[in-house]
Amino acid sequence: MNLVKRELFGPGPTNVPDSVLDALSRPTIGHLDPQFLEIMDEINESLRYCFQTQNALTFVLSAPGSIGMETSFVNLVEPGEKVVICINGVFGGRMKDICRRIGAEVVTIENKWGTPVNPDELQKTLQAHDDAEIVAFVHAETSTGVRSDASTIARIAKSHDCLVIADCVTSLAGVELRVDDWELDVVYSGSQKCLSCVPGLSPITFSDAAVEKVKRRQTPVQSWFCDISLLMSYYESGEKTRAYHHTAPVNALFAMHQALKLVVNESLEARWARHSDAVNRLYARLEAAGLEMIVEEQHRLAPLTLVRVPDGISDAEIRQSLLAQNIEIGAGLGKFAGKAWRFGLMGENASIQRADFIADALLSTIESCR
Amino acid sequence: MNLVKRELFGPGPTNVPDSVLDALSRPTIGHLDPQFLEIMDEINESLRYCFQTQNALTFVLSAPGSIGMETSFVNLVEPGEKVVICINGVFGGRMKDICRRIGAEVVTIENKWGTPVNPDELQKTLQAHDDAEIVAFVHAETSTGVRSDASTIARIAKSHDCLVIADCVTSLAGVELRVDDWELDVVYSGSQKCLSCVPGLSPITFSDAAVEKVKRRQTPVQSWFCDISLLMSYYESGEKTRAYHHTAPVNALFAMHQALKLVVNESLEARWARHSDAVNRLYARLEAAGLEMIVEEQHRLAPLTLVRVPDGISDAEIRQSLLAQNIEIGAGLGKFAGKAWRFGLMGENASIQRADFIADALLSTIESCR
Repeated sequence: MNLVKRELFGPGPTNVPDSVLDALSRPTIGHLDPQFLEIMDEINESLRYCFQTQNALTFVLSAPGSIGMETSFVNLVEPGEKVVICINGVFGGRMKDICRRIGAEVVTIENKWGTPVNPDELQKTLQAHDDAEIVAFVHAETSTGVRSDASTIARIAKSHDCLVIADCVTSLAGVELRVDDWELDVVYSGSQKCLSCVPGLSPITFSDAAVEKVKRRQTPVQSWFCDISLLMSYYESGEKTRAYHHTAPVNALFAMHQALKLVVNESLEARWARHSDAVNRLYARLEAAGLEMIVEEQHRLAPLTLVRVPDGISDAEIRQSLLAQNIEIGAGLGKFAGKAWRFGLMGENASIQRADFIADALLSTIESCR
Repeated sequence: MNLVKRELFGPGPTNVPDSVLDALSRPTIGHLDPQFLEIMDEINESLRYCFQTQNALTFVLSAPGSIGMETSFVNLVEPGEKVVICINGVFGGRMKDICRRIGAEVVTIENKWGTPVNPDELQKTLQAHDDAEIVAFVHAETSTGVRSDASTIARIAKSHDCLVIADCVTSLAGVELRVDDWELDVVYSGSQKCLSCVPGLSPITFSDAAVEKVKRRQTPVQSWFCDISLLMSYYESGEKTRAYHHTAPVNALFAMHQALKLVVNESLEARWARHSDAVNRLYARLEAAGLEMIVEEQHRLAPLTLVRVPDGISDAEIRQSLLAQNIEIGAGLGKFAGKAWRFGLMGENASIQRADFIADALLSTIESCR
């Protein structure tokens, strides 16, 4: 395997610190080994800090962020229940797809791509649908680089007695996220974004109210793998015997343990500030060169930036030329395909130095392609 | 993380070769990087060899073997369809649970734990249920150490126009398995058993007939993550553009690439013989010391052996004493809890030397506990 190392400035995975890769490759141990159960407890405790929550049921799912989304919905939503989904990009659309497969009654609020979820529309929609049980939205839309106002959305949802599901794949440990203060009920993320861990894991947390709703279900959760009533016996600490559910990805969790340790050591506030400082440098550098950001300043998502492809420049040519220099950036998704690039400054890469690196690379590559 | 290395002689994970751990910790690259797509193509090609199949749709699911089971059923089975499940241990029971969640009509054949699936009973059951569409069974029951006759089971199922799902989690690359010759339609496995890779991945293969059945579905697959019609666009080679589905666990797949390379270099036949030779040594050593195997000789599963806990010996005390020597063995599951130990000689540990190592350790530990 003659792999060439890449500088990862796309929408994730981002570059992984050596100490995390070192942890990853420690000799495998059993998933019921007392050493491993202790590591899991430490992971869950660090995750509570990262999510800013006291939720007992806070753990890492053994699969990518997509399974975090699926786990949230298949547990919380029963067939026929009404779910309001706020869509402003690819991942809100995926929520709708998953709810359709559950047989839920889905009410969607469509916001223009590149703009945040509109709280006023949510208020109106919930007034018109007072039987809705769940509100779901994407805090950090990886397809558009938009951050929505999670706190306000959740407050409106709560005032209509709804539980709240929030996709925080690209916000956890990169921008402010306060699960308990904001009263978010189910929040999931991914390992390969601002946590700078290897891809393949999905941190998730459930409020007590969410767990209560799952316990009141009349129908079985349609997925065995995602059924939290089965998972709880393995992940919750303090049990005398921890029941086998599935074989956990032990090595990937070694890496997660180390990645979380780095976050705790740095502190969330410092990490949020680092992501913000880095992207402000990127904006300044690119705007000074005449490039245009897609998203209005107050709604931008620090870890992921959409930059409009200038007239006369080929989107794909620039990406290929950068890749030939071993630099990966992201293509536009959906409505932004061919029209925007996606730049990630996440985890390891959220620094002014790395912002300068990618700005230099992009600007010189555009120059050489003109 | 002060981890003590363990000798892994339980039901999996098994010890992972250094070259696989080295591959695991290579710097992360993107899941759409041309380098990674090439690695995936090579993985799929090696897997076809391991499964002994020409199936186009042969790939690695981004989650543990349990998701292999779930993916098999949620794609192949629609609500209301009749599925015959042969149960002779924990994993057959889990198949039933998954089918119940799908809303399938389940007919079960229960065989005594520690015995194989009875083909005559399957024949009778299919005669009584000529509207059954699927037959499912576990080739290698990890809970009991039993190997069932996959070829005969599939032949009977085919004579009743059923498609066949086989759980080969603990047989792939450890005992004879010939997907095409035996006409198995959907076969899944796990990474952490006879492949000696890290836990967290599930190799899977679908016959053309299975894919056709999925294409004829009247209802959506209930899981977005497991829907093979979405996965195909990412995993099948020869596509001009490979569509993003989810972020693949890139590093774990580096490890899988290397683990499969070791299998191909050794050859399947040599690997099957190695597993057989190793376990024959274990039987001989333990039987010479008066210990009793649970499963009759002709139905034993080479990679996993159930040994009866002798009278007057505490199951848990022996396991704890071995763990204090940094040796892991498996506890009995379900009906064998407290009554049998489970010994894995899988992948790296399938050698006469390693069989002697674990036999020595067990016998001296029993001696010291008497």
